[in-house]
Amino acid sequence: MSRKDTFHDIVRHALEKDGWTITHDPLLLFYELGKLYVDLGAEKFLAAERQNQKIAIEVKSFVQPSAISEFHKALGQYLTYRSLLQEQYPEHHLYLAVPTDAYASIFATKVVQKTINEQNLKLIIYQPNQEAIAQWID
Amino acid sequence: MSRKDTFHDIVRHALEKDGWTITHDPLLLFYELGKLYVDLGAEKFLAAERQNQKIAIEVKSFVQPSAISEFHKALGQYLTYRSLLQEQYPEHHLYLAVPTDAYASIFATKVVQKTINEQNLKLIIYQPNQEAIAQWID
Repeated sequence: MSRKDTFHDIVRHALEKDGWTITHDPLLLFYELGKLYVDLGAEKFLAAERQNQKIAIEVKSFVQPSAISEFHKALGQYLTYRSLLQEQYPEHHLYLAVPTDAYASIFATKVVQKTINEQNLKLIIYQPNQEAIAQWID
Repeated sequence: MSRKDTFHDIVRHALEKDGWTITHDPLLLFYELGKLYVDLGAEKFLAAERQNQKIAIEVKSFVQPSAISEFHKALGQYLTYRSLLQEQYPEHHLYLAVPTDAYASIFATKVVQKTINEQNLKLIIYQPNQEAIAQWID
């Protein structure tokens, strides 16, 4: 199991503990490439439901040494996915799942906070060791 | 010289041929990390002027096999840089420089076009072999 799968599974378990039912793992999103529709692929999304609320989740670990570079990629993915999700799963709200240590470091910088506000990012802050959700940020 | 430097230099030459004066190479942008201000580093920006117009340019090659993944990263960088640029160089407009073949392929997909419109991205389309600007998209 890759490191990435571990974090994916941690967030899945944390959501289940929090009363969510996982409805798609992975959730497939397609984009048009010429005449083909191609799944966004390597990035595995989750989708979950609780009491008529529907969410999709992009899980990130931010374990790479260059956290700002990982943030750039996560942001670009989030905005592209949110746009596709509005067309393909209009009832689902997209959340970016971020571990507590990344939220306390790279996400605490002014530039990241400003970008989150400008782009209306929704976040799930998760505690990897306890496999628990620490905070929802809408 | 790395492949990346090649494309950087191609765009620099194309702008010079187009009557622009290169004012910063690289243009340094800083972000606050705790109590430090850190340059965004590996990504080298250009800045240029022509007849009171000031621009900053993020040069991309899109030569990687996973073009959609490179687009995500370029988009995340563009939005973060644009936000920093507004604070640090408020007179400069930010452009993403994209080669003609990438503009005809990945940039022609609906999802990328929609994202460009939603985020008001400005683009310079360049012809790498001729070291020339093919199109400005505001």
